[in-house]
Amino acid sequence: MQTRQIRLARRPIGEPVDDDYEFTTRDLPELQEGQVLLRTIYLSLDPYMRGRMSDAKSYAQPLDIGDVMLGQTVCEVVESASDRRAVGDIVLAFTGWQTHAVVQGKHTRKLDPSAAPITTALGVLGMPGFTAYGGLLGIGHPQEGDTVVVAAATGPVGSAVGQIARVKGARAVGIAGGPEKCAALIDDFGFDAAVDHRAPDFVERLAGATPDGIDVYFENVGGRVTNAVIDRFNPFARMPVCGVISGYNAVDGLADADRLAPDFLHRILVDRLTIRGFIQDEFIESHHEDFVRDMTAWVGDGRVRYREDIVEGLDQAPEAFRGLLTGRNFGKLLIRVGDDPT
Amino acid sequence: MQTRQIRLARRPIGEPVDDDYEFTTRDLPELQEGQVLLRTIYLSLDPYMRGRMSDAKSYAQPLDIGDVMLGQTVCEVVESASDRRAVGDIVLAFTGWQTHAVVQGKHTRKLDPSAAPITTALGVLGMPGFTAYGGLLGIGHPQEGDTVVVAAATGPVGSAVGQIARVKGARAVGIAGGPEKCAALIDDFGFDAAVDHRAPDFVERLAGATPDGIDVYFENVGGRVTNAVIDRFNPFARMPVCGVISGYNAVDGLADADRLAPDFLHRILVDRLTIRGFIQDEFIESHHEDFVRDMTAWVGDGRVRYREDIVEGLDQAPEAFRGLLTGRNFGKLLIRVGDDPT
Repeated sequence: MQTRQIRLARRPIGEPVDDDYEFTTRDLPELQEGQVLLRTIYLSLDPYMRGRMSDAKSYAQPLDIGDVMLGQTVCEVVESASDRRAVGDIVLAFTGWQTHAVVQGKHTRKLDPSAAPITTALGVLGMPGFTAYGGLLGIGHPQEGDTVVVAAATGPVGSAVGQIARVKGARAVGIAGGPEKCAALIDDFGFDAAVDHRAPDFVERLAGATPDGIDVYFENVGGRVTNAVIDRFNPFARMPVCGVISGYNAVDGLADADRLAPDFLHRILVDRLTIRGFIQDEFIESHHEDFVRDMTAWVGDGRVRYREDIVEGLDQAPEAFRGLLTGRNFGKLLIRVGDDPT
Repeated sequence: MQTRQIRLARRPIGEPVDDDYEFTTRDLPELQEGQVLLRTIYLSLDPYMRGRMSDAKSYAQPLDIGDVMLGQTVCEVVESASDRRAVGDIVLAFTGWQTHAVVQGKHTRKLDPSAAPITTALGVLGMPGFTAYGGLLGIGHPQEGDTVVVAAATGPVGSAVGQIARVKGARAVGIAGGPEKCAALIDDFGFDAAVDHRAPDFVERLAGATPDGIDVYFENVGGRVTNAVIDRFNPFARMPVCGVISGYNAVDGLADADRLAPDFLHRILVDRLTIRGFIQDEFIESHHEDFVRDMTAWVGDGRVRYREDIVEGLDQAPEAFRGLLTGRNFGKLLIRVGDDPT
């Protein structure tokens, strides 16, 4: 049994290029007691992966050169030597950019395909949805009537942030790139307002969309969007910092327009802001049980909708990942690595 | 009865110069029922006053041109038409840069000169001490064994922060300008380490003084000191933002070295930092009672020490205030406006 893999060949400088990856095919080992052989159906691509390709200090160990590119996956169990998993089970795993893998059965989580589409385990009901839920509720504390702003708002995290904000009685304002995404924010995701960050008068549009100022800004992009938002903060505003995607490919530091406003600290003081970085795992104990209950219900009754952007074939992952870092995708980016279960 | 006053003549550009002030003498009104005539003994000079001289957005209304310069004072009651205050009472008031004032008796707080030196009501047992107490305990949450760093560390806020940190079992590291102040941090205030921000190898010295990284940074200066501290933050570090004095006189924005590190947001994310601006008044309900109890006890038993820098004569206030904004003073800066009570 073999697996086709994409490995990290060298550390990217700026935007990852094809030569930063190595495409290989490897033999898989025989199953040991407790292990399962998995066939990848869906691979999740997420911005955090860019950080793991670099060796800059981060919250997690970087990949080593030669490692298989990492990532969460939905897989089918093809062979099992684990009494926890049966052939045919659909499971959530962390097998990365490859077609097959051998892992411990206990390192997979069994999914119920009849309860929700299996792709949602990588999106609205998975890590991205939980990132939105934990960060917004655990740090942002949206109150009834608050204005909550989120950028990359058609993405799996941003779209969940806005919709959860609305469930909590807040006004949701989404920032996205281009009129098509902005229309989707209103029409598909039910945001109260949408602002196109590519518009020349973006700053004025943001002001027009937030007449009562901004109480919560869920940060996942950084750069000039952030600076414009800071200028609209109300006293005691909260800013959960989930990601800074605009800087992930930066090589020689950020352009001046993308640097934080020079008076950022002064604004923090004057407006008594709370800026708080987080990684979703810190909220597992405090919020995960509630997340599963709430988000399943909200997706079920249509209060939270999601959009997927499914790209066919493992070999397309590098190009799709470049698009993710530059905003070309539209919805949760998934690679369909293998056929859906029959 | 007359009062000699210093008023705001125009808004300063950069460092306030003499012509930004107007020295005047005015007649005081007759006392109305409930009012008292006060003679100023001590005037407190504090960095926040610089902000009130400008009309930039802030948490408080700026002074109008022509207003008496503001400030907290310790005064003696010279005449009283208030049944709350008697002639001879020593009171805490907010009468600003002038020798005398008529105010409502209920807008003063009576001090007990036998309990503590009356100057402490403007320093360690007053607003600066409470700023340290509320911000450090309410936001910084120092834990036993944590490393707590504070700059402007010989000032009334900084020296209290370090000493309160030690009471809580943390390691206190102070940053100050020049060897004399650094020696005082160790010898007089009991800090565990002191770092001279004027030293050419400041960054290396800070690293040497914080071998286990930094868990709490009480921010009151900004600029390159802040950038050096950010590089030493441990995961989940907390940064109460109390002031940004290095920028208060900035005219055309900050010099490059004083701007926040370009990857500041990324560091917030990666290290899951909490950055939180505050004004001391938000902690009154939650912390003031404890502050009075604790700080009085700690000053009494010598666990918290304080240093005062007393300048003679109201007319010296503008020059002394310039020194405060550039670090020339050494300890809590007070103007002795009138004789101590006999």
